[in-house]
Amino acid sequence: MATLRAVLFDVFGTLLDVHSVAARAETLFPGQGQRLSQLWREKQLDYTRLRALAGRYVPFTRITEDALMFAADTLRLDMDGAARGLLMHEYTQLTAFADVVPALQKLQARDVTLGVLSNGDPGLLEDALHGAQIGEYFDLVLSADAVHSYKTSPAVYELGPRNLRHPASEILFVSSNGWDAAGAQWYGYVSFWVNRSGAPMEKLGVEPASGTSLADAAAFYIDKLQ
Amino acid sequence: MATLRAVLFDVFGTLLDVHSVAARAETLFPGQGQRLSQLWREKQLDYTRLRALAGRYVPFTRITEDALMFAADTLRLDMDGAARGLLMHEYTQLTAFADVVPALQKLQARDVTLGVLSNGDPGLLEDALHGAQIGEYFDLVLSADAVHSYKTSPAVYELGPRNLRHPASEILFVSSNGWDAAGAQWYGYVSFWVNRSGAPMEKLGVEPASGTSLADAAAFYIDKLQ
Repeated sequence: MATLRAVLFDVFGTLLDVHSVAARAETLFPGQGQRLSQLWREKQLDYTRLRALAGRYVPFTRITEDALMFAADTLRLDMDGAARGLLMHEYTQLTAFADVVPALQKLQARDVTLGVLSNGDPGLLEDALHGAQIGEYFDLVLSADAVHSYKTSPAVYELGPRNLRHPASEILFVSSNGWDAAGAQWYGYVSFWVNRSGAPMEKLGVEPASGTSLADAAAFYIDKLQ
Repeated sequence: MATLRAVLFDVFGTLLDVHSVAARAETLFPGQGQRLSQLWREKQLDYTRLRALAGRYVPFTRITEDALMFAADTLRLDMDGAARGLLMHEYTQLTAFADVVPALQKLQARDVTLGVLSNGDPGLLEDALHGAQIGEYFDLVLSADAVHSYKTSPAVYELGPRNLRHPASEILFVSSNGWDAAGAQWYGYVSFWVNRSGAPMEKLGVEPASGTSLADAAAFYIDKLQ
């Protein structure tokens, strides 16, 4: 295997814990918060894929709002503008998982180039990384918006090698979404799946390396440096 | 609006009732049948999109089996080869919804060209339409396999106009999947969503015509002939 030269991280669910969204939803719609946030997330992913596949791109923030309104309709919730605003705002106020800063510091101490590669649009990414106080660790912030598509489109994953000027085979891609880790491996990255919840491996014909925390991902990278 | 010249139907969930899959799953895994078949279906759709978007096509039957194994892993079910075989076989033994044959007969009486356009691969489509005794109604059976992609890829929807030799704007596309009706409308079809379950409209920026049964779809077509 070639030497690794940089690490790219997925953002939502990988670096940033979206749990607080469900908590906020629960305060707004008691007894429905978990279901609302789950439906919202599923529909958000669906819409990225349906639109990217059809060549009908709209920015991630718009997709996120569309998905929220669909989820609210499904549960027959009266989602007024204020509730919608509060829930959308929650995405800019997420906290980093506890294992994130130690792993980034460990990699930074080794002078590793660090970046993120996310479906999120640039404004949302900046707000979210800044809000979680981890923006300073990243040398580059790559958004699918640059190519008006979404993961698992090769055009999105190609942003990594194009901007880092290293082939994908020399970049470690880290995601807590099994399908994203598979998509990156399809593209040609060395891929690492952070499986915090003990989920089964996706059946997509590739099996990324995996571990249970971002510490495992950092250790995987450092081990390759030896 | 231009005169309509043909009707294309989606197959699984639109013409054929997949309910029996859940029933079979319940006999194999008591108490888990509903959840298994729901996860299976969701993952089946996810895999079509993830693979099509990444240019990693495999046939629908393979995706269906991969999705079944992922769903079984998620629920920690001991899915042996026999159970897998029984569940996969169920897809070739589906029954048509009660409103299907009357609607097809009504359209056939008007000499309307009828076809299907499905993600299913050709062998599965033939077995399923034959098994449900509705194969005879269709002048053409179009499979996404011909272009090695999946809905909502324009390449798949393009199979309709290419094979019917009419522009999409003169073809009615009928699906009980809201996202599929939206995808067809994006492409340029006149689109009709058969919303049997009273689901909310997808928030995808287009609003296909809709009704609650295939009879409504047939009436919509015939009304345009006047």
